[in-house]
Amino acid sequence: MARILLTSGPTRQYIDPVRYLTNASSGRMGCSLAEAAVAAGHEVIIVSGPVSVTYPEQATVVWVNTTDEMLSAAREQFAQCDGLIGVAAPCDYRPEFVQDQKIAKTGQPLVLQLIETPDIVATLGAEKKDRWVVGFALETEDRRFRALVKLEKKSCDLMVLNGPEAMNSEENHVEVLAKDGSVVATIDGSKGEVASQIMQIVGERLIDA
Amino acid sequence: MARILLTSGPTRQYIDPVRYLTNASSGRMGCSLAEAAVAAGHEVIIVSGPVSVTYPEQATVVWVNTTDEMLSAAREQFAQCDGLIGVAAPCDYRPEFVQDQKIAKTGQPLVLQLIETPDIVATLGAEKKDRWVVGFALETEDRRFRALVKLEKKSCDLMVLNGPEAMNSEENHVEVLAKDGSVVATIDGSKGEVASQIMQIVGERLIDA
Repeated sequence: MARILLTSGPTRQYIDPVRYLTNASSGRMGCSLAEAAVAAGHEVIIVSGPVSVTYPEQATVVWVNTTDEMLSAAREQFAQCDGLIGVAAPCDYRPEFVQDQKIAKTGQPLVLQLIETPDIVATLGAEKKDRWVVGFALETEDRRFRALVKLEKKSCDLMVLNGPEAMNSEENHVEVLAKDGSVVATIDGSKGEVASQIMQIVGERLIDA
Repeated sequence: MARILLTSGPTRQYIDPVRYLTNASSGRMGCSLAEAAVAAGHEVIIVSGPVSVTYPEQATVVWVNTTDEMLSAAREQFAQCDGLIGVAAPCDYRPEFVQDQKIAKTGQPLVLQLIETPDIVATLGAEKKDRWVVGFALETEDRRFRALVKLEKKSCDLMVLNGPEAMNSEENHVEVLAKDGSVVATIDGSKGEVASQIMQIVGERLIDA
């Protein structure tokens, strides 16, 4: 049995009190992975952005809004965990300046200067020591190559590659990639089926190994 | 009995296939207004952005994603309606250029040039002829003044003013403003209670008048 940290869902980066940047991550894949991990007898802590899925009641859920909040909560929890599955889709850009009042329309273009938010999986990957890290990559082109580059850069043990059609969908089609560049598995099916198979691979390769 | 068009929920403006600008509008106020309008015996057509509320089954719902889609669907429906209640929070800026592949992070700032999307209530207000239009204004400062300016600019018959705390909340606190600048009503309560009172005012002033 392992103590597993899951990050799940999107985060939001506000430009003013009303408008924000985000993505359509529904938290469904995180929810399915949490269910599969609980079913396999693991202890599960979820750090989640705003979603309307119902996580398994056996899991501990820490709710966050922004990417900085997700990093800080995940880092705190990771200290007591055996591994991380980073399935969240944190908003990876934020406005350099956040307006404290709603920006009024003027008829003129609005120029937003966006800067990158910290990369949660890369940050925890760099600090992992003897813990394991599974990342997720959502790519629209050069998919396998870009996913392998991320696996390396983020110090992951496994990288799960999916496309944008996975977002806010019931189904998923993924490839699980290992450090040596090999494709460990290609999985198609409902997010529940895909999650069970990913958890089985994580169990065999990272927990029971 | 009237045939009422409601716009409801947020819209999304994508910057690439994954990331988008939006706001936290939940569709709850639109849902409560639809329920109150159905209860008052009216026919209701809802043009809604992506939300997870369950609209009354007696209402016809047209789903849209972007502000342009909402305008085009609302304009088509408005032609057969007696009035419009524009409670949606359409995303009012969109990137001038939308990338067709996910923007890869480079470590450098990303400059987004945003332009205003069409104003749905103002567009339909300008074309309303003998139909009535109720607008909603969400303001964070100079609230009543800005709401009255919008009432005038958008050719509304009534303007409902609320603050950002209304978004994604169960409760609401609103002021209903008339063309002469008077405060017709100040309403506090659950979104259901607020919606019933707004529909009563709409009935008395705009439908039965």
